[in-house]
Amino acid sequence: MTHLAIIGGSDAGISAALRARELDPATDVTVVVADEYPNFSICGIPYYFTGEVQPWQSLAHRTSADLEATGMALRLNTLATSIDVAGQRLTVRGPDGTEERIGYDELIVGTGALPSHAGITGLDHLTAADGVHVIHSMGDTFALDTDLAERRPSSAVIVGAGYVGLEMAEAFTARGIAVTQLQRGPEVLSTLDPELGTLVHDELVQHGVTVRVNTTVTRIEKTPAGLTVTGVHQGQPFTQTTELVLVVVGVRPNTTLLETAGATLGAGRAVAVDEYMRTGLPHVWAAGDGIITHHRLLDRTYLPLGTTSHKQGRIAGENAIGGNRAFQGSVGTQVVKVFDLVAARTGLRQHEAETAGYDAATAAAVADDHKRYYPGAHPIQFRITGDTRDGRLLGAQLVGKRGTEIAKRVDTYATALHAGMTIDQLSDLDLSYTPPLGSPWDAVQVATQAWDAATRLATIPS
Amino acid sequence: MTHLAIIGGSDAGISAALRARELDPATDVTVVVADEYPNFSICGIPYYFTGEVQPWQSLAHRTSADLEATGMALRLNTLATSIDVAGQRLTVRGPDGTEERIGYDELIVGTGALPSHAGITGLDHLTAADGVHVIHSMGDTFALDTDLAERRPSSAVIVGAGYVGLEMAEAFTARGIAVTQLQRGPEVLSTLDPELGTLVHDELVQHGVTVRVNTTVTRIEKTPAGLTVTGVHQGQPFTQTTELVLVVVGVRPNTTLLETAGATLGAGRAVAVDEYMRTGLPHVWAAGDGIITHHRLLDRTYLPLGTTSHKQGRIAGENAIGGNRAFQGSVGTQVVKVFDLVAARTGLRQHEAETAGYDAATAAAVADDHKRYYPGAHPIQFRITGDTRDGRLLGAQLVGKRGTEIAKRVDTYATALHAGMTIDQLSDLDLSYTPPLGSPWDAVQVATQAWDAATRLATIPS
Repeated sequence: MTHLAIIGGSDAGISAALRARELDPATDVTVVVADEYPNFSICGIPYYFTGEVQPWQSLAHRTSADLEATGMALRLNTLATSIDVAGQRLTVRGPDGTEERIGYDELIVGTGALPSHAGITGLDHLTAADGVHVIHSMGDTFALDTDLAERRPSSAVIVGAGYVGLEMAEAFTARGIAVTQLQRGPEVLSTLDPELGTLVHDELVQHGVTVRVNTTVTRIEKTPAGLTVTGVHQGQPFTQTTELVLVVVGVRPNTTLLETAGATLGAGRAVAVDEYMRTGLPHVWAAGDGIITHHRLLDRTYLPLGTTSHKQGRIAGENAIGGNRAFQGSVGTQVVKVFDLVAARTGLRQHEAETAGYDAATAAAVADDHKRYYPGAHPIQFRITGDTRDGRLLGAQLVGKRGTEIAKRVDTYATALHAGMTIDQLSDLDLSYTPPLGSPWDAVQVATQAWDAATRLATIPS
Repeated sequence: MTHLAIIGGSDAGISAALRARELDPATDVTVVVADEYPNFSICGIPYYFTGEVQPWQSLAHRTSADLEATGMALRLNTLATSIDVAGQRLTVRGPDGTEERIGYDELIVGTGALPSHAGITGLDHLTAADGVHVIHSMGDTFALDTDLAERRPSSAVIVGAGYVGLEMAEAFTARGIAVTQLQRGPEVLSTLDPELGTLVHDELVQHGVTVRVNTTVTRIEKTPAGLTVTGVHQGQPFTQTTELVLVVVGVRPNTTLLETAGATLGAGRAVAVDEYMRTGLPHVWAAGDGIITHHRLLDRTYLPLGTTSHKQGRIAGENAIGGNRAFQGSVGTQVVKVFDLVAARTGLRQHEAETAGYDAATAAAVADDHKRYYPGAHPIQFRITGDTRDGRLLGAQLVGKRGTEIAKRVDTYATALHAGMTIDQLSDLDLSYTPPLGSPWDAVQVATQAWDAATRLATIPS
């Protein structure tokens, strides 16, 4: 019987535990969970704050009872403090503060990531008790919830306009809080080209959010008037006083435990693993937001995503009990709903592709989600990136109204990217069609044909 | 300058003409169109009858003026009556009845299909004037429209419960007509497994449609009481009198012109072509519902679909002017909306896969379209077929409520089928996730993982 210890009760750790138990029910699995909320859907937290998800318990993918019913043991409120690699045991501190050793045959570490502070002065000491929040755990969620309930703020500044920042702008707006969203770069949702980010920007503004791009926050202070956010906006000093600040400027890998144990760091200072999720330390595997990601178009990078954590965790769980499955790589597929708009991307954008050495070209296209004659058709805005040398598809970005099946349309591109298809080959795909839901050439093919036409025109003298 | 003649103004013919003009604007293109409605979306006709699409002119993908603006010449109300292959010319009969010869360098034939009569007595002489309708052209559409307007029937029998039959059941219901839908097989929508067809059946019944499966219609007669439909229902004689009959029992390839010219017939008695759309007759190409279809899992079959016609037409247009593009094959992707339900399939079902020589296994699964905690989640019913020898994905069927992105979810399977992926490899795909629109393992992956678990359990002794 294999004794499998897993550190981390989020996507990677639980996926690993479930997979090991599924494949070999004789495996003894112990999951060490730092808080008492294993297997919570952290991605769902913004919808708790919109009020759409109630109670908070429903955010659990599975309850502790569900998990234990699969045969895994959960050690809640237990912090792993060190790994003795040679001795194959780890030290944990339990809820009552006492230390304990747990021996293992195999260990999987899924300690995830921590909120980044982006060098903002004040974040070292200001906390939820001061009205300055991050949103990365259920503990953060409860702290924000309590603050909202007790102080009933009428204004908030959100620092950052990535996925979580945008979702939280929607959540605060739904609660009647006036939101100012600050973004360092030239446009919100910097994971998309600004030509598409601007559509998201417009959606925010239409719903009453004040958006300030090109704004770098340098300091947050508690002042008599509230919380004062200071920075630089388009080269000029910027200051805004508000009742609540939410900082969502990304994450950094939480690597302390593995680094101390001797693991190597790689891209983004995340723990280096091979595609089998091996750390290089004997019997120690890792998965999730704390490790590097194999990317099919970029080799190795740091790209923390819940979907990837699930995959890597599942693979680590399989391999730790004797399997031999390789992680086949991310293509960076992401989607976000912002009010009534959905924005998605997969693969690389122009500058990313250029940096990676591709001869990239990007073309824009607009195509209706379904036949225009049928009621409710809406345009989808596309940007397609491909390699002009071999025509290989490198990436796709798309934005459209909710209901235009953006989330699953990006999956066609993601699947094509995974298979290494050329942009031209997208026209060979036998995609579904019925007038209320598509077109004889689906919008995703109209977009790739537009890339083809644009690059042909650009390369063949007329 | 190439003189390209095209027979047929529907999907295949117009796609060919557009592609030839796009790639070489010097090409002289003449399209011979039997009626005066080139490039109409025949798939959209049911939505004209629901009242959702008005006026009928909006069913045109492009107007005649749009088409002529691309530089093609349209010969409307002109019937091609014969092809002189050796002389490279065709004979046409124009709107005034006079015959004319049109010379060509290359000829593309896209004469499509004709409604099948399925051996029903009476269909040889009963027509729209008698209240007996088919729905395959704009002419049929106008005849039915006139009949509905003039007689205002309160009841209708629809013979057939395939895509068009189901859509027309919805259309008649929307107009307050009591519909009885007769289906020869054991369940409606026989392109899906009956386990899923029954969901569509329930949807019809819930919307007031009377459905009679296992009912073979043998005769339609005009009687003093109306139109009497006679047949056999579960081994017993069956008769029903109604005011209007719509027969939608499939199509047969319209091959007379090419057959007379010497072309070979293949699967389904459709014109045989190679993957370049060559008929084997010099300078004669063919595309669309009149020809065989190369299928990636079945080699050659007859599977008339609008999406395929568009692809084949585009390829014929490209190759006729000197291109060298091969049709990469259909995987039989289809989707239909029936009231508030969407049903889709791609690839093969169990019995089709067995017949084709695969070691097929099929597993059912249910998965929510998005995280259940977020409002509006609905289950999607899946059936996945794969080969137990090599794990290759062979087919997928899925049914769910409208709004669950069924149409674009089937496209992920269609793309995976095109790429020849195994069912296990679906778990490697980096599909998009946000709680309002998906799950960390998308429903399409939950379904393939269920197939994997089911076949593993079935093959490994416990």
